Amino acid sequence: MSQVTIDRNEIDIVIAAFRSDLTSFLEEWRPIISRFHLIIVQDPDLKEGLKIPKGFDVDVYTKSDIDKLVSASHASMFSGYACRYFGYLVSKRKYIVSIDDDCSPAKDNNGDVVDIVTQHITNLKTPATPLFFNTLYDPYRKGSDFVRGYPFSLRSGVPCVLSCGLWLNLADFDAPTQSLKPELRNSRYVDAVLTVPKNSLMPMSGINIAFDRETVGPAILPALKLAKEGKVRWETMEDVWCGLVVKVVCDHLQLGVKTGIPYVWRNERGSAIDSLKKEWQGVKLMEELIPFFQALKLSQDAVTAEDCVMEMAVAIKKGIGSKHPELANAAGNMVEWVKIWKEVGSRVLI
Amino acid sequence: MSQVTIDRNEIDIVIAAFRSDLTSFLEEWRPIISRFHLIIVQDPDLKEGLKIPKGFDVDVYTKSDIDKLVSASHASMFSGYACRYFGYLVSKRKYIVSIDDDCSPAKDNNGDVVDIVTQHITNLKTPATPLFFNTLYDPYRKGSDFVRGYPFSLRSGVPCVLSCGLWLNLADFDAPTQSLKPELRNSRYVDAVLTVPKNSLMPMSGINIAFDRETVGPAILPALKLAKEGKVRWETMEDVWCGLVVKVVCDHLQLGVKTGIPYVWRNERGSAIDSLKKEWQGVKLMEELIPFFQALKLSQDAVTAEDCVMEMAVAIKKGIGSKHPELANAAGNMVEWVKIWKEVGSRVLI
Repeated sequence: MSQVTIDRNEIDIVIAAFRSDLTSFLEEWRPIISRFHLIIVQDPDLKEGLKIPKGFDVDVYTKSDIDKLVSASHASMFSGYACRYFGYLVSKRKYIVSIDDDCSPAKDNNGDVVDIVTQHITNLKTPATPLFFNTLYDPYRKGSDFVRGYPFSLRSGVPCVLSCGLWLNLADFDAPTQSLKPELRNSRYVDAVLTVPKNSLMPMSGINIAFDRETVGPAILPALKLAKEGKVRWETMEDVWCGLVVKVVCDHLQLGVKTGIPYVWRNERGSAIDSLKKEWQGVKLMEELIPFFQALKLSQDAVTAEDCVMEMAVAIKKGIGSKHPELANAAGNMVEWVKIWKEVGSRVLI
Repeated sequence: MSQVTIDRNEIDIVIAAFRSDLTSFLEEWRPIISRFHLIIVQDPDLKEGLKIPKGFDVDVYTKSDIDKLVSASHASMFSGYACRYFGYLVSKRKYIVSIDDDCSPAKDNNGDVVDIVTQHITNLKTPATPLFFNTLYDPYRKGSDFVRGYPFSLRSGVPCVLSCGLWLNLADFDAPTQSLKPELRNSRYVDAVLTVPKNSLMPMSGINIAFDRETVGPAILPALKLAKEGKVRWETMEDVWCGLVVKVVCDHLQLGVKTGIPYVWRNERGSAIDSLKKEWQGVKLMEELIPFFQALKLSQDAVTAEDCVMEMAVAIKKGIGSKHPELANAAGNMVEWVKIWKEVGSRVLI
């Protein structure tokens, strides 16, 4: 790994809590995250108070904190999996590392426990290379470099602002795939990280990600809520939508997105077959979303993530949102998110 | 690995010979390639006859075979590393697997010898997914699939026509990189293969590749020859140029390119520092080539690889070739290549 300084004052670990007792989850992660500041956001539907073991530097946010910031018409923005975005909003740090509470630390091919914080921050602090593909994966990793033919003018890369980690055991399949292949588990630890090329969209998963909050925080947003979604990942599309938004923003602003290591180990939760009925709405939507986002071009006036999100919200509302009320609603949430983001940001400055 | 049928009658192994005694090279590869038909093309500058151990089904081609097909003004097309392309031309099989003669079989993370033929053909016989990025790498590999959010309409992929393998030990760095980091060796076996997304160009290396000759053979061509290039990889750009051409063709024709496994082990050859002076011409050219190829759009009239190459040759001659005589020459070689390809193809039919 490249030599990168991990400054605990620059990093917030954000965790969404869907169960009140976080003891076993936090104990598993203690060796990796206990030296960092934790922001835990309690699912607004969870009534009991949280049980958090001692020895963590933690701030907890609940429904009442959310209600103070968001109008009633937009409160559902932060329900379910999306409650974590409230943590992104109230953080005052440069980097966010965010993991689902059904994850455990993974082990690499040598049997060593994966330090996701160090790896994510290394991904973010070394450049990304979206403008030309490097066949040897991340050229900034120790032991790697640019291959023959890689233009020297592109070897400084662009700032990396989003690091998408992966999953061992239960991978992030959708309900149909997991139902058709109930035995399917991911056991392949691929020791690589790479940049997703410019103009290539990817299905971002929010299970294990990190990002540069100062630069793209306004584009890491909760917007798309499916009518019947529940509390299991394969029923949600909020992160997939967010990934489409943030990738378009990154491509426009010449910023980079990496995918690959670090891995987390994902434990079982929910029944894929029970979810099948609910999932199809998202599956159907994706068919229309991809061509829409692939064709979306932002104007030269959009020079910040906020600008880009506002432009996209207008385009979504006028375009694909005119046919699908849930997408018009997502566009509305995007506008609301930028509004709150600016409000919260200006308060921090005072 | 997916269950793919490996039919020996569909495959030619093409090897360019730069030394007369191929005994140790072929003995190392015997367990993997002896059941296939081999096409060995002797470097036209190599005067001695070849020494080939018994037990191989092999056809050898020499300078006199090349001279029969190519006009004197284009004979340099097939000199040095580029002589292998003569093998691609005379093959009558669907698939070509091509390796440099400084490569040995590699071992995977379990210590098993990598069967490059099976892996390359598997890459080619399973679809590619250039239209949307799958974070779990090749979704057709055993144990993998498409992640949540991947549109179902894109899950059948497109035909994969080019498989670019990788290198352990001596990786394919350029002379400046290898000179600056003389100790740099690639020891990371990344157990993955992925599709290079549409509209993303990559620096193809000809060290270890396989392709669908019937579909993109006309675009796998020797065209760019640097004035002072010698017989070591880091002095050549022929494969990098070819990679730019074939990727533009694939993007236009909705075909796919994969990169990743299989690995070969590359042995030392030549001195990077001696090559430094020669290499810079190629390095400088790349700075102009990438924006040119990125902007190149082919017309709807181009429906075969031949059509695409002919259109590109015209565009190169008119555009970047007007400034660089070696690129105008490359465009000329492309036209000549298509001409010979058609000639040879029609003879096979008779």
